[in-house]
Amino acid sequence: MPRRNLISIEDLTRGDVELLLDTAESFLPVLERDIKKVPTLRGRTIINVFWEASPRTSASFDLAAKRLSADTLVFRGSALGDPHGEALKDVAITLDAYSPDIVILRHPSAGACRVLAANTRASVINAGDGGHQDPTQCLLDLFALRQSLGRDLDGRRVFIIGDILHSRVARSGIMGFKMLGMDVTLVAPPTLLPRGIEEMGVDVRHDLSELGDADVVYLLRVESDLTEPGAAYLPSLREYARVWGISSARLRPGQRLMHPGPLNRGVEISADAADGENLIASQVFSGLAVRMAILYRTVIGYSDGTATREAL
Amino acid sequence: MPRRNLISIEDLTRGDVELLLDTAESFLPVLERDIKKVPTLRGRTIINVFWEASPRTSASFDLAAKRLSADTLVFRGSALGDPHGEALKDVAITLDAYSPDIVILRHPSAGACRVLAANTRASVINAGDGGHQDPTQCLLDLFALRQSLGRDLDGRRVFIIGDILHSRVARSGIMGFKMLGMDVTLVAPPTLLPRGIEEMGVDVRHDLSELGDADVVYLLRVESDLTEPGAAYLPSLREYARVWGISSARLRPGQRLMHPGPLNRGVEISADAADGENLIASQVFSGLAVRMAILYRTVIGYSDGTATREAL
Amino acid sequence: MPRRNLISIEDLTRGDVELLLDTAESFLPVLERDIKKVPTLRGRTIINVFWEASPRTSASFDLAAKRLSADTLVFRGSALGDPHGEALKDVAITLDAYSPDIVILRHPSAGACRVLAANTRASVINAGDGGHQDPTQCLLDLFALRQSLGRDLDGRRVFIIGDILHSRVARSGIMGFKMLGMDVTLVAPPTLLPRGIEEMGVDVRHDLSELGDADVVYLLRVESDLTEPGAAYLPSLREYARVWGISSARLRPGQRLMHPGPLNRGVEISADAADGENLIASQVFSGLAVRMAILYRTVIGYSDGTATREAL
Repeated sequence: MPRRNLISIEDLTRGDVELLLDTAESFLPVLERDIKKVPTLRGRTIINVFWEASPRTSASFDLAAKRLSADTLVFRGSALGDPHGEALKDVAITLDAYSPDIVILRHPSAGACRVLAANTRASVINAGDGGHQDPTQCLLDLFALRQSLGRDLDGRRVFIIGDILHSRVARSGIMGFKMLGMDVTLVAPPTLLPRGIEEMGVDVRHDLSELGDADVVYLLRVESDLTEPGAAYLPSLREYARVWGISSARLRPGQRLMHPGPLNRGVEISADAADGENLIASQVFSGLAVRMAILYRTVIGYSDGTATREAL
Repeated sequence: MPRRNLISIEDLTRGDVELLLDTAESFLPVLERDIKKVPTLRGRTIINVFWEASPRTSASFDLAAKRLSADTLVFRGSALGDPHGEALKDVAITLDAYSPDIVILRHPSAGACRVLAANTRASVINAGDGGHQDPTQCLLDLFALRQSLGRDLDGRRVFIIGDILHSRVARSGIMGFKMLGMDVTLVAPPTLLPRGIEEMGVDVRHDLSELGDADVVYLLRVESDLTEPGAAYLPSLREYARVWGISSARLRPGQRLMHPGPLNRGVEISADAADGENLIASQVFSGLAVRMAILYRTVIGYSDGTATREAL
Repeated sequence: MPRRNLISIEDLTRGDVELLLDTAESFLPVLERDIKKVPTLRGRTIINVFWEASPRTSASFDLAAKRLSADTLVFRGSALGDPHGEALKDVAITLDAYSPDIVILRHPSAGACRVLAANTRASVINAGDGGHQDPTQCLLDLFALRQSLGRDLDGRRVFIIGDILHSRVARSGIMGFKMLGMDVTLVAPPTLLPRGIEEMGVDVRHDLSELGDADVVYLLRVESDLTEPGAAYLPSLREYARVWGISSARLRPGQRLMHPGPLNRGVEISADAADGENLIASQVFSGLAVRMAILYRTVIGYSDGTATREAL
């Protein structure tokens, strides 16, 4: 079977995405057992390479691998040297010496995953590469949505609100939501929208006046460096909170509120919305089952839906 | 079975403590085997969350979990952000997404374990929370004592010497020693004794004149910041060593010398006492079996003493 | 069976070395399987103690242990305190409390492994101690050479080029190459050669004029601190590259080029030599099988060559 990477949502067909979500669903009962573990990937080696610190994502992948009985290695930040200083090609040689089945890479540069994939025999999974893609986050968002709205997301409307410009989460999310037939509206001040983004087949709004049309309200984290002098993206976090911040009062009943975390309470999300009914804990919870499904499918293959049930 | 935490020695009855120590004893032969491992907690997930660095304690819990065949995750210090900056409640959501059976927490704030326990479905084990409690240290001390003095500690006299004021080890130790029927005497300069400590049912002395009465001499580590200008706890470490430091010459034959480590040789303990006959290595050695027992009992339950032998 | 350490190549006989290399070879097919794992060391505990950061070497040992089904613990740098501040004897007590079968030690001081070995019940494996020895590197180099030149290295000529003076790799390598019957020539400016090195039974050259005689060209990494003002070892890296740097043009066909990594491209090795035909990737790749063999033999014993095959 040819090697399979997951670097961008574009690496998947709609059928692949649905198979991944079904596989993740089949793992949910495993997570409720006393023995939260299947032997499927016993003896496989899965390496986490996190050039940017992201201990929660790294832990989630690491635990997903252990739940599948794989052996894991984790390299963090400085352990592999300057991400720009050494040829990724040389790092690939080092990693290949461990004969991994999968390398999971988080890297500050868009495109790093493709370079690594071209130089290793392992499958490469993108855990976030610069402003490019974060396909795992997208898949767990879709999973949490399906758990809440049901399997058919066709025609559902999602509003993505915030810093679209710098967000790999937005970039992956737009592709994934659209792949499952959803309507995507981006809402942000013009400074935080990439030019020509409409070409991705989305609507664009510069205010929240139509928020009531959304079935799903997806907030992006606002980083404080957007307000630094010279950045000129935002006048202040307080101003952002006033104009764009989502409180419970701004939502109508039944709207699903999502956020990839970590939350900036009082900025893009009010404390009452964070503590009220929303899908945020469900998104976090979905991470493990979805990552198990990704690792499983990457090794076992995407084409045959029956294998999952057999392996369990 | 209802979830069981171990946050304070007060969470245990005398029967629980004795069961834990018996369980730990039953694990000793396992540690002597070639295959130092039992399958009891296979597929369980145990997460170490150490907001304060304590690599040895963390490693001891991690290895205890592995010896029971559990899967482990370790989060250290900055990995989860400022301990005071983010609501422990949000961290609990993150941890719960890994569906752990047990979360082991070390945290700079007294009471953090209770907050975590109120917000997670996992059992919480306290690996030290501020100046509050360190129940694991207490249990391994009791275990080392039983190995040396025999199972019946009733009426034995222990002198705890040093910085009682800032010591969670002292606080847990007093409770544990008394629970097994020991007489506890605290010996320290008045600046290092909490007011009203006598209410815990202990004797208090301000000099070492009655040291000969002790069966067990338990030294606390003296931190150098006690002598910082403005701290006013101690004039100098040299003065402390002269007045309070324990050398072999100060001990009578048969007295058991204990210290929770790491040692300040030449301050609270002389080099000859550190290298002479004492229970210090035995305390360190006890850590693994006792932590295995705690993890085991937390998952399997405290009430039925026969289970241990079956599982082995 | 008495405990067996691997602290210096001198701890091995020629027969031991050949057995280790044969054992490593027997592990190669395991690394090609889907389940890259043997149960041989199940329930054994192997502790990595790395006082100097060396994440790749540490990961290689850790993964080798996992491939043999052992449980592993890793202590890094500051986790065990100042290497010179606490008695290694006290650290040995801590480590012994985990009842490890093997402790793998990297330490900045030559001789630290011997001190540790005298104070622990575990076997000690040297992963590099100051300027003293790096026996694992030597063995993987020999393994890579055997894979390339065949089992009989008798009479082959190796030129070791570069900073012999500060190199534990050179020190182990000289012993190992000679043990298998190779002729060793050291090539370096006089400032980078230890006095009296000829007593190890090697030839010494101060220029590359006879490079054509070499079957194997072994380059050492040149650290930039050699050119610091006051160091007086080298005028400049550029000058070093001009005089001593190896490019493809300087090699004749069939010569095996080796380097322990990480490479200083453009200094001791040119980019075209680094990217051309050489044994460098093979050296890296050999690390895992050789470390598996070392761990395996340390536990199971060196004397009986048949055991390997049975265990697999």
